[in-house]
Amino acid sequence: MTVIDIINKTKRGIQLTGEEIDFLVKGYTDGDIPDYQMSAWLMAVCINGLTEEETVALTLAMRDSGDVLDLSAINGITVDKHSTGGVGDKTSLIVGPAAAACGVAVPKMSGRGLGHTGGTIDKLESVSGYRTELDFAKFSEIVNKTGFSIIAQSGCLCPADKKMYSLRSVTGTVDSIPLICASIMSKKLALNADCIVLDVKCGSGAFMKTRDDAEKLGRLMEKVGRAAGKKCRAVVTDMDKPLGYAVGNELEVREAVELLQGRTRGELYDTCMELTANMLELAGKGSIEECRRAAEKAVGSGKALGILKETIRLHGGDSSVCDDVERLPKAKYSHVIYAPRDVEIAAVNAEEIGMAALLLGAGRQTRDDEIDYAAGIMLEFKVGDKISMDAPLMTLYSNVVSDFSEAALRAYNALSLRTLTGSALT
Amino acid sequence: MTVIDIINKTKRGIQLTGEEIDFLVKGYTDGDIPDYQMSAWLMAVCINGLTEEETVALTLAMRDSGDVLDLSAINGITVDKHSTGGVGDKTSLIVGPAAAACGVAVPKMSGRGLGHTGGTIDKLESVSGYRTELDFAKFSEIVNKTGFSIIAQSGCLCPADKKMYSLRSVTGTVDSIPLICASIMSKKLALNADCIVLDVKCGSGAFMKTRDDAEKLGRLMEKVGRAAGKKCRAVVTDMDKPLGYAVGNELEVREAVELLQGRTRGELYDTCMELTANMLELAGKGSIEECRRAAEKAVGSGKALGILKETIRLHGGDSSVCDDVERLPKAKYSHVIYAPRDVEIAAVNAEEIGMAALLLGAGRQTRDDEIDYAAGIMLEFKVGDKISMDAPLMTLYSNVVSDFSEAALRAYNALSLRTLTGSALT
Repeated sequence: MTVIDIINKTKRGIQLTGEEIDFLVKGYTDGDIPDYQMSAWLMAVCINGLTEEETVALTLAMRDSGDVLDLSAINGITVDKHSTGGVGDKTSLIVGPAAAACGVAVPKMSGRGLGHTGGTIDKLESVSGYRTELDFAKFSEIVNKTGFSIIAQSGCLCPADKKMYSLRSVTGTVDSIPLICASIMSKKLALNADCIVLDVKCGSGAFMKTRDDAEKLGRLMEKVGRAAGKKCRAVVTDMDKPLGYAVGNELEVREAVELLQGRTRGELYDTCMELTANMLELAGKGSIEECRRAAEKAVGSGKALGILKETIRLHGGDSSVCDDVERLPKAKYSHVIYAPRDVEIAAVNAEEIGMAALLLGAGRQTRDDEIDYAAGIMLEFKVGDKISMDAPLMTLYSNVVSDFSEAALRAYNALSLRTLTGSALT
Repeated sequence: MTVIDIINKTKRGIQLTGEEIDFLVKGYTDGDIPDYQMSAWLMAVCINGLTEEETVALTLAMRDSGDVLDLSAINGITVDKHSTGGVGDKTSLIVGPAAAACGVAVPKMSGRGLGHTGGTIDKLESVSGYRTELDFAKFSEIVNKTGFSIIAQSGCLCPADKKMYSLRSVTGTVDSIPLICASIMSKKLALNADCIVLDVKCGSGAFMKTRDDAEKLGRLMEKVGRAAGKKCRAVVTDMDKPLGYAVGNELEVREAVELLQGRTRGELYDTCMELTANMLELAGKGSIEECRRAAEKAVGSGKALGILKETIRLHGGDSSVCDDVERLPKAKYSHVIYAPRDVEIAAVNAEEIGMAALLLGAGRQTRDDEIDYAAGIMLEFKVGDKISMDAPLMTLYSNVVSDFSEAALRAYNALSLRTLTGSALT
């Protein structure tokens, strides 16, 4: 078996054996197979695809490249949730406590973000004192106490994915459904929860631009999860526009807390309730309708907020933010964009709003960039709203950017506005 | 313009601009673009192909990565010939002198071989004293004197091809018609002769296994050559079986000399006359029939042999080998394979004969291997011949291998033999 034979098979559309895939992943992780051979293989996969069997084998080989956690120290049924990434996605901060409030254990590991805004770990670090680098014993202890904890993903999980993902990002080999599936699922399977809900974002702000691709990815991830012995369900959710109103780390924590305070309804709430219901149903907590009602009750009663607050406290963070969001860090500079005339919001390009937030310092362009936790954008509307001339469209925040002209232009251009004649605005 | 954008375009089947291809080739040659990005792009080309315009641009960018020779010091019309490589291919040693004898200048640069047998340069080095590393002034002087010279390809020609070819050989990206075309034609265009004849080998012993692929490659090379302002013609020739009887460096020089001595007819002779006729016709020396007659006369009269002899002398080689092939180096060990029964030779797998010759020391498995010039295989038949039991089928030669069992088995298994009943052998 040589790596060139393996590359040639995938190039010619011939299915690899499990042994060949193991050889490839192990050889690459160990450094025996150089980047230039792996990138040729990855490109062949991007163009020719992989079969389901190959995708399962690839995912398992990547999972087994590092530690696979033993969650037996955690009481009850463990449920994990993964979102495929989008603009303004703060669902983990909501569904984790909500599901925990309904009696399942939610031990989560998240990554840092590369791109428009931070990852869930970055968002949590905007809470003063919150420690994301806890050891596994402490992590298990918190989950057993509150039902919920999020820590930074350990470097010992899926080193193959880490190395392959870095290579993919510089070789034009990111956009492949089997590779995306293997990258996500290898990490989920290494975390090793009993049940996995996969929130597949779909739309202009997501990696999957079409419903068809999102469903393909979702079905593939379900198959891989089930092949590995997990209960697994994919839910396709909308990412044509930012999720909720806040885009940026601290701003998103604020929105999540406000939702758990029972102060918000709308699309973000509906998405979170749908995901929580699926987590509970997968864990055997009743029918999907019963689970949905339980999730809504967990939020409405304040129980979910209490879990978030206690979890933040156990992580060393300032849990008083759950009582008063004004205790979250605030940006030095802000800038309001007003409606230039009476308009209806016809559409919002989520990705462009994300890029504007990145310009303000909310995300990272390279791994070494520092995030400005307070930076970001608050939208003052939802799609379909009618806004009077001179009313605010959005507010931009930053500690590092005081000249808002570039970010404001980009954010404004992300909106599709329909001009209204006088009488329409009633 | 970024290399990732370029990779993505080719991955998606979008045609690159000339500027993008220049950026890629220059960046890779200069070391700004790493191997892992180039190999991803090469794999995308292997699977999705390139358009003719892209192939022309790639070839010219590779040509321009190094020196382009100025052949104005050479008198008359210059004609180059390239064969795409096969087993037992000694045509350059024959068509060069034959064409020169008919009044065209044949300045050739050749490479060393990697694989079953050496390249033309290795073959010539089996002639004692022959110097292949002459400077350009000396090279031009010899061509002006005899009409013909072959030297080793200069490292200053097409560094992009050298680097890309090394990468292709270890990344499963060799078998792409546009990449093969660009590799061959960039070197031909850097040599810069007025006319170029391309001998595209086709069959089991060649890189192009089917007539269809050979013709595709031939047409593409013609188009690229013409786009670069050259007279260019591709001729598809058979490589289902070894060309001629000798496979190995010294053995092939011997066969070439014997042919120029007027002692051989058959397929090798016919192929060489066809190639020479095309070289002459391309250079305006008359109709193809007139050129063929001129080529045959050049061999029949001994004039071509005289040119080879004088060229060898001017290169410092032992030119007496042209009078007496027994002066060529001889192998210490030899081994005859006899027919085990009365047989007809139904077919010969050229590639397997080549691999047997490699086992004897006739070729290189890695760039650093030393060639045993005297090693090789002499076939004692042509396809269709009937051989009596115990008559020789072939003779194996080597200075480095004294146990012939492995090579003999491989060579014997390369033959498809049809058993004859007594009366058939008459």
